[in-house]
Amino acid sequence: MRSESHGARRRRQIVATAVDLSTAEGLESLSLSRLASEVGLSKPGVAAHFGSKQALQLAVVDAAADAYAGFLAEAQEASEPGLARLRALARAWLDHLDGIDYRGGCFFAAAGHDFSGRPGAVREAVARYTRRFVHTLDEQARLAARLGELRPGVDAAALAFSLHALAQEANLRRELLDDDEAFPLARRALDQLLDGVTSPPSKESSR
Amino acid sequence: MRSESHGARRRRQIVATAVDLSTAEGLESLSLSRLASEVGLSKPGVAAHFGSKQALQLAVVDAAADAYAGFLAEAQEASEPGLARLRALARAWLDHLDGIDYRGGCFFAAAGHDFSGRPGAVREAVARYTRRFVHTLDEQARLAARLGELRPGVDAAALAFSLHALAQEANLRRELLDDDEAFPLARRALDQLLDGVTSPPSKESSR
Repeated sequence: MRSESHGARRRRQIVATAVDLSTAEGLESLSLSRLASEVGLSKPGVAAHFGSKQALQLAVVDAAADAYAGFLAEAQEASEPGLARLRALARAWLDHLDGIDYRGGCFFAAAGHDFSGRPGAVREAVARYTRRFVHTLDEQARLAARLGELRPGVDAAALAFSLHALAQEANLRRELLDDDEAFPLARRALDQLLDGVTSPPSKESSR
Repeated sequence: MRSESHGARRRRQIVATAVDLSTAEGLESLSLSRLASEVGLSKPGVAAHFGSKQALQLAVVDAAADAYAGFLAEAQEASEPGLARLRALARAWLDHLDGIDYRGGCFFAAAGHDFSGRPGAVREAVARYTRRFVHTLDEQARLAARLGELRPGVDAAALAFSLHALAQEANLRRELLDDDEAFPLARRALDQLLDGVTSPPSKESSR
C-alpha cells in the first residue's frame, strides 16, 4: 500500500478547509484567494490543485458527502435493518449536525439553498447526494413496513420525509434562530414521530 | 379614507417585484440596478424610494411577512382553536408554498439561509418573523394538548417543530430535487403526523 503523496495530502487539506469555509460563507462565493490565505498558500498554488472554481466546488461537495456517508455507514452497521436502522440513521444525522462546531451548520442545507437556483454540475452533485440520503431513509422505512414494525396503513414515504425534515428544521433553528434547544427538541420530535407510527405495545404479541 | 398616493403605490410595486427577485436570486445579492430594470425605472428613481440597500431589504422582508400573515390569518379565522387550527395553519402553509409560481420557493427559507451567517438588521427581521410563525404553531399545539385533543404525554413543542419542518422539507425537495411529489407527500406526512399524536378514535368517547 503506497502512502498518500504529498500533493494528494495537500489537496485533501485544502478541500477540508474549503468545506468549512463554504458551509459558513456559501459554496457559490467560495474564492480561491480567500481559500489560499486560509491554508497559507498562494492563489496560483491553490489553483494548481483544481484548475477551475467549479472543479474545486465539486471536490468540496464530494468531500462533504464522504463525511455524511461515513457516519451513516457507522449507524447502519450498528443497527438491525428496518425500524431500528431507520431510527439509528435519523438519530445519527441529528447527532452529526449537532456536533458541527463551525459556523454554517449543515453543508448540504447551505449548498442546496445556494445552488437550487443555479443550474449546472454543482447543483446536480448536491442534488444527487441529497437524493441518496433521502433514499437511505426511505429504504429503511419501507423495510420496516414490510417487516410489520409500523402500524398498518402507515405511509413509509411520508415517514421518511418527516424524518429528513427534522434535520432541516433543527439546522434552521440553530443557524437562524440561535435556538440552543433545536437539537434536543428535534430528538424528542424524532422519538414522538416514530412512536406515532409504530404498533402500540399491546399489539406486539399479535405479530 | 384617502387613496394611496402615487409614490406609495409605486413603492409597493417595487417592493413586490423585489420580493420575487430576491426569493429567486437571494436577498443579499438583490441589486438596485437589476431591480430598476425589472420595474422600468432608473436606478436613482428606485433608490429615491428607499435610501439604502438595507432599507430596501427590510421593506422586502416586511412585505413577504405580510403575505404570510395574510394566509395564516385566513386559516386562523376559518378554524376552531386547538387541533383543528393547528392542522389548518400547517395545511395553509403547505398550500401557500405549493401555489408559489416564481422560482425560489419559500421567501423565508431562502432569506433565512442567506442571512443566517450575516449579523445585522436584516437577519434579525427574518429571524423575528420566522420565530413568530413557529410560535403560532406552538401556541395551537399547546392549546390542543390542554383541550385533551392530543394523546396523553404528547410533547406539544416537538409536534409544532415537526409540523414546521414539513414545510422546510417540501420546499427543499421541490427547489433542489425538482420533486413534483414534494407537496402531495408533505400533506400525507402532515396527516400522518397528526394521526400519530391524536387520541385513537376508540377512546374519543372517554373525553
